[in-house]
Amino acid sequence: MSQIPVVERILGANEDLAAQNRRLLEAHGVHGINIMAAPGGGKTTLILRTIQALQGRRKIAVIEGDIASTIDADKVRAVGVPAVQINTGGNCHLDAVQVQKALAELPLEDVDLLFIENVGNLICPVAFDLGEHTRVALTSIPEGDDKPHKYPGIFAAVDALVVTKTDLLPWVPFNLAEFRRLVRGLNPDIRLFEVSCVSGAGLDEWVQWLMELTVRK
Amino acid sequence: MSQIPVVERILGANEDLAAQNRRLLEAHGVHGINIMAAPGGGKTTLILRTIQALQGRRKIAVIEGDIASTIDADKVRAVGVPAVQINTGGNCHLDAVQVQKALAELPLEDVDLLFIENVGNLICPVAFDLGEHTRVALTSIPEGDDKPHKYPGIFAAVDALVVTKTDLLPWVPFNLAEFRRLVRGLNPDIRLFEVSCVSGAGLDEWVQWLMELTVRK
Repeated sequence: MSQIPVVERILGANEDLAAQNRRLLEAHGVHGINIMAAPGGGKTTLILRTIQALQGRRKIAVIEGDIASTIDADKVRAVGVPAVQINTGGNCHLDAVQVQKALAELPLEDVDLLFIENVGNLICPVAFDLGEHTRVALTSIPEGDDKPHKYPGIFAAVDALVVTKTDLLPWVPFNLAEFRRLVRGLNPDIRLFEVSCVSGAGLDEWVQWLMELTVRK
Repeated sequence: MSQIPVVERILGANEDLAAQNRRLLEAHGVHGINIMAAPGGGKTTLILRTIQALQGRRKIAVIEGDIASTIDADKVRAVGVPAVQINTGGNCHLDAVQVQKALAELPLEDVDLLFIENVGNLICPVAFDLGEHTRVALTSIPEGDDKPHKYPGIFAAVDALVVTKTDLLPWVPFNLAEFRRLVRGLNPDIRLFEVSCVSGAGLDEWVQWLMELTVRK
């Protein structure tokens, strides 16, 4: 017996549940965004800055995925936004079952935009549809400009890429022009943003894009 | 049928092969080190700096694990050290089968210290013994000081932790004292190194530790 049929069955069941999640979000007029990045890529910080920027313009909720701890959900709740923390135990990605349970705890009728922050991992989350409408990857400047060579799957699979921590560009080697070329080679239609959550550079463009994706109820 | 028996069988088979790999390394007097970190944590850069520092003192070989590309093995070969690149396809970690095949391509009779650079991932590699003698994790300053909260498994599972990119400490928030306290809470016996491959700070202590672990043939 090979492992393949089991994996296929798991992914098939996940897709069914993801479709249910998507229908539930749509029934409430919620746009779901699955945020994926390596550990320390700046997911939570970008979400917090985005909440601040969209204050009074879009109602946001957040699902936080981590192996352990509640520190990310605590940070989001501290700025007055509903957040559910999923702890995956040892699991290296979120799945649609976990998201389905988290959705039941959120006031969806009062949400326009849902961020689902995946477990920090450039590989495993890519295979699991959670029921989102838009997939966004983050890659941070100090990770280096060779990531599209090494993790091509995630760059090919997302709608947008946010390059974070651009304030560190003076201190680390990173060829932005070559990086952009590599990313567009893997995904010609990708939306590219380059931001610093420290200086605020580039955030306006990202926030404008989110405004276009979502509708205020 | 649940997934558990399949997973147990895969891990059991992996352990048998890992034990074979370890015996093969020992028969040739080679000490194997499994290097694990998040994408962009600085694994290849640390290996390259260590090769330079141990020149003439220890004979090194490297197995490079990546989903795609050969750029890391190319960098190692460029400094005159034997290297084998494993491309895992989509797989998120190395396993003992892949390492067994790579070992067959290395001149083990002429190697004292083998670095096995795992796929960039803080989660999945931890479960797979490759036949190494020592497990080392890297965590880089720009990833942030909260990683032990979120990925406790890897901090508990390794013999040593190398904090990399300490030259970036002036530019990012990172509480080193609190980070050390968290890490030692998860793993009281861990060896802790703090290095910058840019300035060279802290590398002497790391290299000295490798000298003690290994023997020149």
